[in-house]
Amino acid sequence: MGLVWIVPAVGFLAILFAIWLAKDVLSRDPGTPAMQQVAGMIFEGAMAFLNRQYRTIGTLAVVTAVVIGILVGVFAHNSVEGILTGIAFILGALCSSVAGYIGMYVSVRSNLRTASAATRSLPEAINVALRGGAVSGFLVTALSLLGVAGIFGLYSSVLGHPAADTPFLIVGFGFGASFVALFAQLGGGIYTKAADVGADLVGKVEAGIPEDDPRNAAVIADLVGDNVGDCAGRGADLFESMSAENIGAMILGVAIYAATKDIAWIFFPLVLRSFGLIASMVGLLSVPAFARPDKDPMSALNGGYYVLSALSVVGLFITTRAMMGSAWFAFFICGLIGIAVGFAFVYITQYYTAGAWRPVQEIARACLTGPATTIITGTAVGFETTAVTAIVIGVALVGAFVVGGLAGVVNGNIYGTAVATMGMLMSASYVLAMDTFGPITDNAGGITEFSHASPQARQITDNLDAVGNTTKALTKGYAVASAGLAAFLLFSAYLDRVKELLGGCGGKAATDVPTGRLAGLIQHCGDALPVDLSHVEVFVGALLGGMLVFLFSSLAIRAVGSTAAKIIEEVRRQFREDPGIMAGTSKPDYARAVDITARAALREMVAPGILAVALPIAVGLIFRATGTLNGNAGWQSVGGVLMVGTIVGVIMATFLNNSGGAWDNAKKFIESGQLKDAAGQVLGKGSFAHAAGVVGDTVGDPFKDTAGPSLHVLVKLLSTITLVLAPLFV
Amino acid sequence: MGLVWIVPAVGFLAILFAIWLAKDVLSRDPGTPAMQQVAGMIFEGAMAFLNRQYRTIGTLAVVTAVVIGILVGVFAHNSVEGILTGIAFILGALCSSVAGYIGMYVSVRSNLRTASAATRSLPEAINVALRGGAVSGFLVTALSLLGVAGIFGLYSSVLGHPAADTPFLIVGFGFGASFVALFAQLGGGIYTKAADVGADLVGKVEAGIPEDDPRNAAVIADLVGDNVGDCAGRGADLFESMSAENIGAMILGVAIYAATKDIAWIFFPLVLRSFGLIASMVGLLSVPAFARPDKDPMSALNGGYYVLSALSVVGLFITTRAMMGSAWFAFFICGLIGIAVGFAFVYITQYYTAGAWRPVQEIARACLTGPATTIITGTAVGFETTAVTAIVIGVALVGAFVVGGLAGVVNGNIYGTAVATMGMLMSASYVLAMDTFGPITDNAGGITEFSHASPQARQITDNLDAVGNTTKALTKGYAVASAGLAAFLLFSAYLDRVKELLGGCGGKAATDVPTGRLAGLIQHCGDALPVDLSHVEVFVGALLGGMLVFLFSSLAIRAVGSTAAKIIEEVRRQFREDPGIMAGTSKPDYARAVDITARAALREMVAPGILAVALPIAVGLIFRATGTLNGNAGWQSVGGVLMVGTIVGVIMATFLNNSGGAWDNAKKFIESGQLKDAAGQVLGKGSFAHAAGVVGDTVGDPFKDTAGPSLHVLVKLLSTITLVLAPLFV
Repeated sequence: MGLVWIVPAVGFLAILFAIWLAKDVLSRDPGTPAMQQVAGMIFEGAMAFLNRQYRTIGTLAVVTAVVIGILVGVFAHNSVEGILTGIAFILGALCSSVAGYIGMYVSVRSNLRTASAATRSLPEAINVALRGGAVSGFLVTALSLLGVAGIFGLYSSVLGHPAADTPFLIVGFGFGASFVALFAQLGGGIYTKAADVGADLVGKVEAGIPEDDPRNAAVIADLVGDNVGDCAGRGADLFESMSAENIGAMILGVAIYAATKDIAWIFFPLVLRSFGLIASMVGLLSVPAFARPDKDPMSALNGGYYVLSALSVVGLFITTRAMMGSAWFAFFICGLIGIAVGFAFVYITQYYTAGAWRPVQEIARACLTGPATTIITGTAVGFETTAVTAIVIGVALVGAFVVGGLAGVVNGNIYGTAVATMGMLMSASYVLAMDTFGPITDNAGGITEFSHASPQARQITDNLDAVGNTTKALTKGYAVASAGLAAFLLFSAYLDRVKELLGGCGGKAATDVPTGRLAGLIQHCGDALPVDLSHVEVFVGALLGGMLVFLFSSLAIRAVGSTAAKIIEEVRRQFREDPGIMAGTSKPDYARAVDITARAALREMVAPGILAVALPIAVGLIFRATGTLNGNAGWQSVGGVLMVGTIVGVIMATFLNNSGGAWDNAKKFIESGQLKDAAGQVLGKGSFAHAAGVVGDTVGDPFKDTAGPSLHVLVKLLSTITLVLAPLFV
Repeated sequence: MGLVWIVPAVGFLAILFAIWLAKDVLSRDPGTPAMQQVAGMIFEGAMAFLNRQYRTIGTLAVVTAVVIGILVGVFAHNSVEGILTGIAFILGALCSSVAGYIGMYVSVRSNLRTASAATRSLPEAINVALRGGAVSGFLVTALSLLGVAGIFGLYSSVLGHPAADTPFLIVGFGFGASFVALFAQLGGGIYTKAADVGADLVGKVEAGIPEDDPRNAAVIADLVGDNVGDCAGRGADLFESMSAENIGAMILGVAIYAATKDIAWIFFPLVLRSFGLIASMVGLLSVPAFARPDKDPMSALNGGYYVLSALSVVGLFITTRAMMGSAWFAFFICGLIGIAVGFAFVYITQYYTAGAWRPVQEIARACLTGPATTIITGTAVGFETTAVTAIVIGVALVGAFVVGGLAGVVNGNIYGTAVATMGMLMSASYVLAMDTFGPITDNAGGITEFSHASPQARQITDNLDAVGNTTKALTKGYAVASAGLAAFLLFSAYLDRVKELLGGCGGKAATDVPTGRLAGLIQHCGDALPVDLSHVEVFVGALLGGMLVFLFSSLAIRAVGSTAAKIIEEVRRQFREDPGIMAGTSKPDYARAVDITARAALREMVAPGILAVALPIAVGLIFRATGTLNGNAGWQSVGGVLMVGTIVGVIMATFLNNSGGAWDNAKKFIESGQLKDAAGQVLGKGSFAHAAGVVGDTVGDPFKDTAGPSLHVLVKLLSTITLVLAPLFV
């Protein structure tokens, strides 16, 4: 218990740090009036979208909170539990929204400062963009930490629930966070790609004007989109990752607490996360020391990541040593496994999506024979990337499981997988800062172009933009891997929750014989409940869980198409009704284009969102009512949906993210003049091979920026929804 | 037992029927000398490929037979079992090869007769093509039936093994069949699409000559490809479906036999299959009665299918009534569910892949905005199709499970799902005849074109070709659905096999308490063994099983690209070295192009084939050696690979087949002049929308004709490999 004070202390410190970063960024030179004008439009568009989006999400969230409060209250025969779950849901949704909102606010103010800094020097521009992104990164982590710790404190210390029961009451917090994340990522992802595709089709293809041309009414919407997709969406994604993982690990800690009576097992995840925050702060502050004008900006970001990783190992050592007694060494190794997985994914993602290696070059060469072979090869590469991902996650899980089992505590093996996940997520705030770095530098490039800044500045922002593409890809790899790693601990938490609801083991030792309905399912109270694929209900649940991933992806991808159609219509209308726009004598109505895209994107996000929430509930309730298995078919079939949905979701997200990233960079590879035909002739921008590359890039857009990232959230939503609604299925 | 005599009787009758059909087709007019010349080249190419392919497969099969014989013998501590399994493997591989070989032989002789018949009348052409295809269909079914029945008779009656043990000894037959099917489908699928894509790229795109132009050396390879992919590949696919499903159902019957001592439960699958053969024969003979010159040829084929379905219901009634005593009605309903699923998939596939409905039209409209939106929309449609597939399979499985459970026999519920699969597969020989109809009519079209036959004849073959595309798509839907439906019974058979190997329940009643290692796993001998996803080994196995599907698809798709590169090189070389080819004064060397494609395709099929065989074995052996779970981690983790690999395989195959089919027909929709732009202008062949449609069609080719169909086989190979090698994992 000695280290628990560190949780609120570091949480508030991180918030102060974020405020200091925000002040630092906002106090910097805001550039020329031309820059400010463009940035102002982006800012307004982004805030208008965010306001509208959070209004929609808020309405949905309040309704959902009431419904789940009532459902849990009724099905668990415990109205207090229902109310507390509903409140936790609202708090989770609120914290996620606040973090997303403030992060976005700073991000769309940092783009301008980055553009201005780029007129002076590369190291300054890196620093501004990274600090701007870090506001979001640290707020998200700190609010997740304080939110979980605060609600735990409220329910246990203030309301007096036993510490061992409280983790089950606060799962609503994680569900609220997932709920917001799902819609934020879906809405943002649909918006960003619809604006991107729409602007390109109506501008470059139809009207024949260049990309980012101010005469195109959709251009501002496109720049707004970068922010709402990558910054707000991914922030909400990782907010919920951390919350769900914290709560899940605390639930697993309950089992060890029951055996050891040492509450440190419940608090351990929060303390380790605090050390991760400290390590991330130091890592971030060390970046300027690695930035050189003559070097690749990526090496500066990598430098910070190395510092952070080294400090994470130290923090992991201190925490395990201090809190875990004689079991510390095994869990220390588990945490190292997690840190290593984070590292591995940084390199795997780079290998598969950067131009320096075989996969992207293979796609670029396929562009020589046209768009069809480009798509075929990219698909094959994308499918291939799932192999390393699955193997690394599999090896890490089994490794942590086996090592954790040597710790000599009850269920140490499953707790070992939880510690690995925690180890990996120690770097979350830094990774998130790198991710938000992406849209900020992207926007800075757009502002520089729009405001006719100097070629040197443009070169610096181009350089940063390329790095931003890499960091965005890395974050997606990181998010997928953490989802895969966390999956097993969240299943286990679900099964612990079901066990508690089935009764018969409450307060008993692991070796005791269970009573009641549990008696037919497990032999000892320490055994995990089965989710047995040899039952037809579980198998069908698993089949539907796998299908859910495909159908959800279909809806997300299709939403981009129909939203893009709306923006194309609007730009066409503006061109038609005001010929002055094309002539350059009058300005297009950017705000209207932004608004129309926002409305359409938010409408389109509802169907896949509801599907994701409704399918597991429907399966659970149908099999609960009709299934055999002594009334256990409900929760078991939901287990099938959850587990196979997660597996397929992780694999599919990997495919979508990596194929999209590889197509994007194959196009860039061609643009940089590195592709030659059989005769040794360079085929660059404007060649037929480049046209094929553009087709690949466009196909990849909704894959990597809409469907893929939304699947990360879907996977975690499945975990939290089943945890919270377990009483419905038992 | 009264009806068992029908199995050999109908088996031999079906072979006689196939011989009669072959004689009938081969005795028909072989057309003009020009036609015969082209057909001769196709025949030689196809036979050369087949000889080379079966030589490769034969070598691999003999090595594999010896290896598995030794492995099973050593691990099961029973050398007789090892030898018998190896022999069964060889017999299965041999029967599959013979059926494939003869079927192909007749098919590539029927194309010429169909072309000739098309110069006379549509009904005659339909009849010739369908009968030519039916030779393959009936041989495949009859040899599967006689092979399983024969080896059962040999092992039980001649060698004197107890009837209850014999189904476990003959699983090698199914594995041999799967093994041949995997390589036949992979090799054929790679060959056909590489030749198709290669011929188009080097002919239409590079040299600017029309499709099927005789100056293109790859044209004959392309026509050969249609046969080796669709005819030989799909024949082997369904041969092994039927064999594996028969053996799996017989294994499930063993449990009921143990309780009732009525051996009818073991023979039931074979008897029902015999009735299916009779129904299919009558259905086939009734087709001419439905064929009218003025009507869509599809309606004639549908007419035969209705007759067959009605007779199947009658056969199902007789068989259940005669063999199942008081339990007959429940299983009769289960069989009806299976027949209904077959029907449902015929319509689902048509809805998603034919031009008359929303999905294909949506893709065609997306062609208006270029290749990128064509691919995006097609992908979204393909993902969407998995939903109905999963739901229909899920509902049918649960339905048959629940109804079978009401039959009042031990494990009646799982047997119910087996009966549903049997009901569906009653129509297999007819469906296979329709499938082979596809390449025959496709070839007939090519021959007509090549030999400058009359426009009327060309119109008839075009008409038949369009129908052939539909029937090929239907067969794929049918094959996927049967794989999904059969999956559950094959899992159950695997678990029954493991139970037998673990000992402790041999000869005991379902309510007895098991002993030995079984005691910790199940409570009563009648319980199914768990494959529990909450164990980390099973979860990781499941993750790897899902990944296997993606990696396998990647290898299959990529193989098409690298094989196509080889054929392109060769055609370029011929153009370069002999300018007379382009001038039309000298003939290209077709045979060399065929041979080079064949070699490359067969080389490329090895890697995905070995992956499919090696991964489950590797997972099982690694976890057997390292896993916890009281030494049960090996077979349980393999169960995870098997079940989740199957689920993901079925879903992925559905996506690949249907997106490919939909792209193909979207292109045809545009070519038929049905697509209009916003101004009402028709955009037909040669428009930019058509070019986008061609890109979609080309992308879809390796999806629907290489990776998708190979996945059907992969799914069933997983079932048979785990059944046969279970002793390695226990």
